[in-house]
Amino acid sequence: MTAEMLEQFNRDTFPQIGHMNLKVEHVDDDSIIISMRTADRHLRPGGTVSGPTMMELADAAMYMLLLAQIGPVALAVTTSLNINFLRKPVPGKMTAKGRLLKLGKALAVGEFGLFSEASDDPVAHVTATYSIPPKRDGA
Amino acid sequence: MTAEMLEQFNRDTFPQIGHMNLKVEHVDDDSIIISMRTADRHLRPGGTVSGPTMMELADAAMYMLLLAQIGPVALAVTTSLNINFLRKPVPGKMTAKGRLLKLGKALAVGEFGLFSEASDDPVAHVTATYSIPPKRDGA
Amino acid sequence: MTAEMLEQFNRDTFPQIGHMNLKVEHVDDDSIIISMRTADRHLRPGGTVSGPTMMELADAAMYMLLLAQIGPVALAVTTSLNINFLRKPVPGKMTAKGRLLKLGKALAVGEFGLFSEASDDPVAHVTATYSIPPKRDGA
Amino acid sequence: MTAEMLEQFNRDTFPQIGHMNLKVEHVDDDSIIISMRTADRHLRPGGTVSGPTMMELADAAMYMLLLAQIGPVALAVTTSLNINFLRKPVPGKMTAKGRLLKLGKALAVGEFGLFSEASDDPVAHVTATYSIPPKRDGA
Repeated sequence: MTAEMLEQFNRDTFPQIGHMNLKVEHVDDDSIIISMRTADRHLRPGGTVSGPTMMELADAAMYMLLLAQIGPVALAVTTSLNINFLRKPVPGKMTAKGRLLKLGKALAVGEFGLFSEASDDPVAHVTATYSIPPKRDGA
Repeated sequence: MTAEMLEQFNRDTFPQIGHMNLKVEHVDDDSIIISMRTADRHLRPGGTVSGPTMMELADAAMYMLLLAQIGPVALAVTTSLNINFLRKPVPGKMTAKGRLLKLGKALAVGEFGLFSEASDDPVAHVTATYSIPPKRDGA
Repeated sequence: MTAEMLEQFNRDTFPQIGHMNLKVEHVDDDSIIISMRTADRHLRPGGTVSGPTMMELADAAMYMLLLAQIGPVALAVTTSLNINFLRKPVPGKMTAKGRLLKLGKALAVGEFGLFSEASDDPVAHVTATYSIPPKRDGA
Repeated sequence: MTAEMLEQFNRDTFPQIGHMNLKVEHVDDDSIIISMRTADRHLRPGGTVSGPTMMELADAAMYMLLLAQIGPVALAVTTSLNINFLRKPVPGKMTAKGRLLKLGKALAVGEFGLFSEASDDPVAHVTATYSIPPKRDGA
């Protein structure tokens, strides 16, 4: 799936993450870069970006990276996610850069760095595992 | 801090999680039970609750469990969170039940089970680590 | 599988963990307690137990908890393990107490507390995921 | 610390990991490559390398990466470790390649890929967190 197809699939299938206004900046055979713009609802006191916003961005990035490889399978589900928060993120554009560590028949594993504007150091690091539903006969 | 104080602190300090309408059902020296009611924004296609909603609930539960012990320290920050998604959650009331595994000077670690209505089996399991800011002199 | 069967299976199949001298103290439908006695090779300077020893104990506990339910399937493999080190363990008897959070067709998830002698507080907490190989026809 | 200093420090301080015969192949300001050769004690039935061996290698790699930056501080301790097992490793040389994601005053976070001979795909991926003891006055 191309960047445009991924964005369209997302809009159609997950209206609930419309608030993130996700943009696919790059996608290829084993990596992806997506970005969002933080709004008030994503911030915490002191003007930092909330942890759940970063987890949601990483989860979406993993999903789109996986879809890009296996096609629009809405039933793929996250089975685990591990995040380390590293630095204080600032509001504005937030980018998730990730790659597949494994794309197996039943499980896919990816890792992601999250970045704020104005620094090359990651604000968080995520590994996530997705379960891939078995293909049905005739499907 | 009591349940009422925690809810008030949350409303005052984190208006962004007002959408969760969190309720502290129980809190004591090393455990907490909080609940939320899922709304459309928390759901996924097929009527399941989104992973990010569960991560946000667990993150809030850990924060409130910690605050209940150390008082209203808005600067305590999550340093890591690990979640395993176990079963498909259903919309409605979602409950997080957790306990402190460690409350050290610099780090606190907690674990949480997340539960949907209509089942005693957890829909997700979370461990989370918080960094506790050092007390300032005179504070 | 009973405690004795588990210990026998372990001895036959994994001679490499003989150094742990694992003892199954309890096992039932969804929980297990196993213990080991630390030897010099498991210690670190200052007389604490090494992290890898604790990870190996937890990994073995998860494996035996799973085998107790699904029978002697040597091909079940760990897919992920997350450990939080909480307190300094002391040499001597170390116990892992765990339970299944999920036993699905393809994945099993368990959580474990590790305990040293002389304290009721856990020295570490582990969640682990195992992949269960599909049954072959005729097997 | 240089590669030679790290290996010497390890031999002096952690005789218990002598069985790994660790070799520091590269170390710089924020990355490290170390390797080991698997022996019988590191293997599982079917000739694969055991999970605990990989966890021990990753833990040692993180420790040495940290020491290379902050000097020989035997008291730095792992606070958490998350590993995803990705592919079946083969006996022989096993390499851990890692980098610091964060080197803070109190916490350091690193990520590592583990590699078997004969493949460029990682057999496991690890993130680990170390607690750095505060410097004593006069030290």
